[in-house]
Amino acid sequence: MSVTAPLGFRAAGVAAGLKSGDQRDLALVVNDGPSHAAAGVFTANRVQAAPVLWSRQVLAGGRVTAVVLNSGGANACTGPEGFQDTHATAEKAAALLGESAGEIAVCSTGLIGERLPMDALLAGVESAAGQLSRDGGLPAADAIRTTDTVSKISFRRGDGYMVGGMAKGAGMLAPGLATMLCVITTDADVPADRLDAVLRAATAVTFDRLDTDGCMSTNDTVLLLASGAAGVTPAEAEFAEKVTEVCADLARQLLVDAEGATKAVAIEVIGAATVADAVTVGRAVARSNLFKCAVHGEDPNWGRVLSAVGTTDAAFEPERVNVAINGIWICRGGAAGDDRSKVDLRPRDVTVTIDLSAGSESATIHTTDLTAAYVHENSAYST
Amino acid sequence: MSVTAPLGFRAAGVAAGLKSGDQRDLALVVNDGPSHAAAGVFTANRVQAAPVLWSRQVLAGGRVTAVVLNSGGANACTGPEGFQDTHATAEKAAALLGESAGEIAVCSTGLIGERLPMDALLAGVESAAGQLSRDGGLPAADAIRTTDTVSKISFRRGDGYMVGGMAKGAGMLAPGLATMLCVITTDADVPADRLDAVLRAATAVTFDRLDTDGCMSTNDTVLLLASGAAGVTPAEAEFAEKVTEVCADLARQLLVDAEGATKAVAIEVIGAATVADAVTVGRAVARSNLFKCAVHGEDPNWGRVLSAVGTTDAAFEPERVNVAINGIWICRGGAAGDDRSKVDLRPRDVTVTIDLSAGSESATIHTTDLTAAYVHENSAYST
Repeated sequence: MSVTAPLGFRAAGVAAGLKSGDQRDLALVVNDGPSHAAAGVFTANRVQAAPVLWSRQVLAGGRVTAVVLNSGGANACTGPEGFQDTHATAEKAAALLGESAGEIAVCSTGLIGERLPMDALLAGVESAAGQLSRDGGLPAADAIRTTDTVSKISFRRGDGYMVGGMAKGAGMLAPGLATMLCVITTDADVPADRLDAVLRAATAVTFDRLDTDGCMSTNDTVLLLASGAAGVTPAEAEFAEKVTEVCADLARQLLVDAEGATKAVAIEVIGAATVADAVTVGRAVARSNLFKCAVHGEDPNWGRVLSAVGTTDAAFEPERVNVAINGIWICRGGAAGDDRSKVDLRPRDVTVTIDLSAGSESATIHTTDLTAAYVHENSAYST
Repeated sequence: MSVTAPLGFRAAGVAAGLKSGDQRDLALVVNDGPSHAAAGVFTANRVQAAPVLWSRQVLAGGRVTAVVLNSGGANACTGPEGFQDTHATAEKAAALLGESAGEIAVCSTGLIGERLPMDALLAGVESAAGQLSRDGGLPAADAIRTTDTVSKISFRRGDGYMVGGMAKGAGMLAPGLATMLCVITTDADVPADRLDAVLRAATAVTFDRLDTDGCMSTNDTVLLLASGAAGVTPAEAEFAEKVTEVCADLARQLLVDAEGATKAVAIEVIGAATVADAVTVGRAVARSNLFKCAVHGEDPNWGRVLSAVGTTDAAFEPERVNVAINGIWICRGGAAGDDRSKVDLRPRDVTVTIDLSAGSESATIHTTDLTAAYVHENSAYST
């Protein structure tokens, strides 16, 4: 499945020696067409990795014939040399595939601030090009993992076409975009401008509403490639729905695999004056370390929810806010409500509902608990 | 020392039974005059505890004759009943002291969302009033502790007058104000409007630049009371300097005692276009869980610093940013600089210097590392 589920795509995942051991660390995804329409969205971080700077330029043209992805190094904060490394990577793939380097996107993930070992990487690109196959979706998804404990893949079937995808991401998961690499493919025939609109709308309500640790990456990239090989131009609404479903499915997989997490927490903000207010409030709660620790301790601590809501500029009156945790309204009118002992926080999935009583808009932000395992993992591992 | 170091002040700290065991949990500080000029600054959180709402009104009059402080309960998110509880506390102290309730400030700290046990609290106020003494500064400082492992007190001697202070705070330490209760006293003769200006200026560069966990409290209060008992009207600059020194000393004590922390981290931002930019950048780095984990792991991970800087709207160009950790410039021009193995992160005190190369302004934000002990403490303890 993964990115090779739709017709017209081949992929490979190989061990190039960027990571220790024999782990796969380089993936190549090729769009054999007939269409090469593509769209991309990138990190909102102002410190952007070389592959992000490169791929932005590529995507500006609306055409992508292949994507080279590597784990084992982010190629971020590596100066002009780092950009030249990305350029050389695209040139190498272009030469092997007989395509233009200007239509080859590059994505990298791993430690910030160190140059990639280019001899190994370029040899890996050559190896991957020799192993491209219609079955290569899974090895490719495996090759882009860093601290991810599992590969993340997804697909949906539309009316005569398919949408597939792969993603990586377990830490630095925060807004604009949730920190990650993701490639989504389809064999539908959709022009680049339409892909762009669909992808932006889909990521805005999926990856952009994931916030596990409030840390925004320098390398976030989500690409959507269309081969047109199914010979079908899909209905707009259905296509948008399928792409959004794949994004939501992959976002959910990132959340569940977040570093050290033991809980998947949905923060539903309802009764908001605007969607932006709902997102702001959900994000503030998702970023409260004290709230995240309380969830980890299975303590229905609505006071920590309200103290986070109070730091925002959203429209609300403190004495009109209601909060439910797993369906029990333990805060009503800004004060204690139902008996907190009724709240069962043992399940992995936790839902916090915040009713601002200020309007009719809503949004849900997804986060995790904060655990000693997160601290251990991020004290020892460099990203 | 503490709040009774200056002439004209008496204090007491008693066990009222708000906390378990025989721990002190209620403090009373009385200004015997002749002046009762006072100023206060309060949390910027929009969800404000009852004692904050009450004390704001009291301080609007510029006169405070006494302050009642309790740990064992924040009296936040307790509705109109909670406000009545605070009012009753002030009335009780007023009756005992023969003063007006409208000149008695109240401060509370502890769990949000539960009513205080008023019978115990009012009996505690009576007990404290009976134990008021010139030696009561230390018991009072002890009585306001929650997760604080030590009492925080400070004093400075001016030209013919003194400035003393006590504070509590170990978690929910974040801006506007750093989450805490603090009472500062002086026997200088200074009018209320001048106290207000001095206090605002002092807290802006001390408590407001402390950010241990990014969580802003509902109860932050800093009061400055002047008795005039020394009969001295101090030089403005010297008085401001002494008050700022006491604030800085107490802020430092809060930082060092922050929940679970093993490192005291100063984030110096230099070369900023404005002080606001410097504060914004320092705050963003102080709030990066990944950076804080790296410091805990003694990993000089400047990539996590840059990825946090990149989330701000401060004026800077990524390729002109330099970062030093404990004096070693490991990032120059947005890329790897000196050898990171030269950085010694074993000392408790850590200094991260971020040169934005965008101007000549600077500011320092103080934070801590993120540890498994923080998670443990905040998973088990309710605030």
